[in-house]
Amino acid sequence: MSYNLLKGKKGIIFGALDNKSIAWKIAERAHEEGASFTLTNTPTSIRFGTISELAEKTNSIVIPADATNQKDLTELIEKSMDHLGGKVDFILHSIGMSLNVRKKRIYSDLDYNFLQKTLDISAVSFHKVLQTAFKLDAINDWGSVVALSYIAAQRTLFGYNDMADAKALLESIARSFGYIYGREKKIRINTISQSPTPTTAGSGIRDLEGLMDFTERMSPLGNATALECADYCVTLFSDLTRKVTMQNLFNDGGFSNMGMSMRAMHQYEKGFNCNDC
Amino acid sequence: MSYNLLKGKKGIIFGALDNKSIAWKIAERAHEEGASFTLTNTPTSIRFGTISELAEKTNSIVIPADATNQKDLTELIEKSMDHLGGKVDFILHSIGMSLNVRKKRIYSDLDYNFLQKTLDISAVSFHKVLQTAFKLDAINDWGSVVALSYIAAQRTLFGYNDMADAKALLESIARSFGYIYGREKKIRINTISQSPTPTTAGSGIRDLEGLMDFTERMSPLGNATALECADYCVTLFSDLTRKVTMQNLFNDGGFSNMGMSMRAMHQYEKGFNCNDC
Amino acid sequence: MSYNLLKGKKGIIFGALDNKSIAWKIAERAHEEGASFTLTNTPTSIRFGTISELAEKTNSIVIPADATNQKDLTELIEKSMDHLGGKVDFILHSIGMSLNVRKKRIYSDLDYNFLQKTLDISAVSFHKVLQTAFKLDAINDWGSVVALSYIAAQRTLFGYNDMADAKALLESIARSFGYIYGREKKIRINTISQSPTPTTAGSGIRDLEGLMDFTERMSPLGNATALECADYCVTLFSDLTRKVTMQNLFNDGGFSNMGMSMRAMHQYEKGFNCNDC
Amino acid sequence: MSYNLLKGKKGIIFGALDNKSIAWKIAERAHEEGASFTLTNTPTSIRFGTISELAEKTNSIVIPADATNQKDLTELIEKSMDHLGGKVDFILHSIGMSLNVRKKRIYSDLDYNFLQKTLDISAVSFHKVLQTAFKLDAINDWGSVVALSYIAAQRTLFGYNDMADAKALLESIARSFGYIYGREKKIRINTISQSPTPTTAGSGIRDLEGLMDFTERMSPLGNATALECADYCVTLFSDLTRKVTMQNLFNDGGFSNMGMSMRAMHQYEKGFNCNDC
Repeated sequence: MSYNLLKGKKGIIFGALDNKSIAWKIAERAHEEGASFTLTNTPTSIRFGTISELAEKTNSIVIPADATNQKDLTELIEKSMDHLGGKVDFILHSIGMSLNVRKKRIYSDLDYNFLQKTLDISAVSFHKVLQTAFKLDAINDWGSVVALSYIAAQRTLFGYNDMADAKALLESIARSFGYIYGREKKIRINTISQSPTPTTAGSGIRDLEGLMDFTERMSPLGNATALECADYCVTLFSDLTRKVTMQNLFNDGGFSNMGMSMRAMHQYEKGFNCNDC
Repeated sequence: MSYNLLKGKKGIIFGALDNKSIAWKIAERAHEEGASFTLTNTPTSIRFGTISELAEKTNSIVIPADATNQKDLTELIEKSMDHLGGKVDFILHSIGMSLNVRKKRIYSDLDYNFLQKTLDISAVSFHKVLQTAFKLDAINDWGSVVALSYIAAQRTLFGYNDMADAKALLESIARSFGYIYGREKKIRINTISQSPTPTTAGSGIRDLEGLMDFTERMSPLGNATALECADYCVTLFSDLTRKVTMQNLFNDGGFSNMGMSMRAMHQYEKGFNCNDC
Repeated sequence: MSYNLLKGKKGIIFGALDNKSIAWKIAERAHEEGASFTLTNTPTSIRFGTISELAEKTNSIVIPADATNQKDLTELIEKSMDHLGGKVDFILHSIGMSLNVRKKRIYSDLDYNFLQKTLDISAVSFHKVLQTAFKLDAINDWGSVVALSYIAAQRTLFGYNDMADAKALLESIARSFGYIYGREKKIRINTISQSPTPTTAGSGIRDLEGLMDFTERMSPLGNATALECADYCVTLFSDLTRKVTMQNLFNDGGFSNMGMSMRAMHQYEKGFNCNDC
Repeated sequence: MSYNLLKGKKGIIFGALDNKSIAWKIAERAHEEGASFTLTNTPTSIRFGTISELAEKTNSIVIPADATNQKDLTELIEKSMDHLGGKVDFILHSIGMSLNVRKKRIYSDLDYNFLQKTLDISAVSFHKVLQTAFKLDAINDWGSVVALSYIAAQRTLFGYNDMADAKALLESIARSFGYIYGREKKIRINTISQSPTPTTAGSGIRDLEGLMDFTERMSPLGNATALECADYCVTLFSDLTRKVTMQNLFNDGGFSNMGMSMRAMHQYEKGFNCNDC
């Protein structure tokens, strides 16, 4: 399926690790829709994952960069413009990591160096990408920037830990910089708040399986998959959504506006009737 | 416990049916805090319930009125001012009823006459109370009006039916009229969005028990009781919250900002391990 | 410009009056994107406007119907399915009218018969459309329904009057029915909250010009036009947004998340330096 | 005016600089309501301001502490418990500072060391206070913690710069830790989102005067003063709001739910009629 929605558009895609990554699916769909782009990730992630396979598949190149490093970002963006033959039209930010989660430091016992890294990698990196691109005047008028977020930015989920705070910060940066990019360059910035998705990166979240069962039953349309996120992202990169900016857009099968569904309540109540559990 | 927070204040309290009513608890607490007020309900509710007991206890009178009837409301407010010796300082609106719920008409098979009644009784009545009081200039400067709402106004809960839409309309009326009352008369209007509470009126909601167990386990502080709602309401009627207006204020133990708690997930997952359920 | 995003899709479009209508632009864009559809409006609006011109242009038919009348809606949907050769894939609801606004009844002096009509025409009609289509099983799996809303549903704008409450009710109905349609039929329901747009219907709103100047300067990307709304709506009708449901989606150049812009503040402060104003 | 709402309660108040500080007013009002507490600020702020005057007035002591320093915080809380004779019942966090604002680094040209400091001082410090108190088990059951925030956390205001992101992070921390404190210790955590207030600390915000005029005219009740914030805060520290947690509570005269007021529009439009401006 292709509509040529991104025909002739150029972009930079952060955060594809392997074929379970949402960024991977977005790259595939953007390619199908006619876009050309560069791929980037940290050297470690590039080694650990399989991004070169994606590059081959989508006829793109991989440029290693640490998104918390301004010099790396400058080089990435300059090389991308060189390679693509001009300014870009879209950027995807799909980056998140918490050492507190990885090292099992619970929220009432955070390591503050880890917290700073969580915020720097998962949220401030978005500001750095945007500021670097702003200074290099690297995005065309009516371009579109998307970062991936999660409902933990609004509501607390046990075990999601300091990533919740990072996502809240990320969404705030999208609004704050969205104002300036809109005013100065007619460029829009939004976040997609995606259903929990079984990626390699997300596998550190506590009890992800139980949570995904709950959100699946709570959401009238079920959880959104990585591919469905990619489809949605394509519409946000296209010219059909030019006045949508500074928004956090839920792609979650309706979960965000549910209080309680019949299906979830049915499962919830099962345990009551069960003496042996 | 009394702080004299409402010493010398006068009010009108809608919606006390029996001692499980939230309005009943609010009347008791307002009395303890030094307020005097009139009580009102429909003739049917007065017969069905035990409001005269409350009147005796709080040294107040009961004035029957149908809150959807402008003539009744005019008389009620005039009589209240007569009885209390002047304008009032606070009004509580705690009114809601759905014939669709009562008659088990599900949301995809609503009776539209019932829907109109639901909206008229549960939401438009609030506008009528406010408009009548506005025309009679019945509320003192820096007075406070509160209506009771529920999170169904923001998020869908299966079985709550057209009451969800009524609560959304109610909260909108609070904002719309809050602007005018604030601008013209320095009076504030807010809604309290209360935890599910086991009142006689609420007993028609499907599966209320299951829902209350879920919200109890989801809310870090547990569900708020009717008495806790009354305590909160007293602060909103007091002079300590003068610049809080047009707000929907959650009194729900934190439920509204939870995505998933450990306790609720634990119960949710019980059923999975249970072959016989 | 066409992407064939709606190729082969069928729909029903409510509310096109003349070529300033948002529904008109949506019909034009849906046609360009390959959809076929029926058009509908009240007999009065059909006489008053120029919808037959749109029908010709988009190769569609006009079926008169009063959206508050269940019998009319049943006939409309049945005729539409007959004409289009099967179930529909999308429905647009773009209906709003307030006699209180028209007759200059301010919000503290509403006529309650008018208010009931405002709610019935502008919000409950959406429920009636959805319920009728539900009973007729008239929408294909993974279909999409959109209603047009306005930020007055969340924030009070002087002069918008009881239409604010109607929009709040409309958005609530979208959520409530979105749950059921999602669960039962995999169909999504959303509202687009559009910038103020100079339509014929909107011309009754007080001081629309001043407001539009303000929102234009507040919004980093400026107000969204009717055509931009149509583009956005096309993405929501397409297969690329299948898991987006129960959402209120702002198409407003960023206005909804602005507190104060440099441009609006500059204009605001002009008046201070002006003795003669 | 005193209701003895905080009779016998003990607390720690962060952030009083001089008599224009909101924390100053809160300390005065808490004292009037019967609370005893310790005051704290950084050594620099203590030298620069007049906090000892407040200590004398409220019969409290000043304990210098850098709220970003865990060792300082541990000492502060231990000394406070020593001085007050036991665990505390409430904590106020009123801390914010941005070197980017001070050094006039605009949002598209942030210094990232400054940004880290902004986040650390204005938001992460709140986590550090809460984590330190949690580990010391320093707050009584049913205690209450409040941090001061601003609507920039939700909506972009030009010139508010990276403080907007800090406030978004602060509010997220309140939710995240609110869940844990609620679950483990029955303690509630909320933020008050206050009207713009002319404090010494806030004087670096660009064009504060123009903004305050706008918010004054937009808010039906006008801007909330520091004293009104203190009154509100007292209710949140009292026993009357025990089930209110994880909330961001607007004390802003209604500004947050206004789209446009008559008064603000009148001023806005003045400039149009003025050739010489």
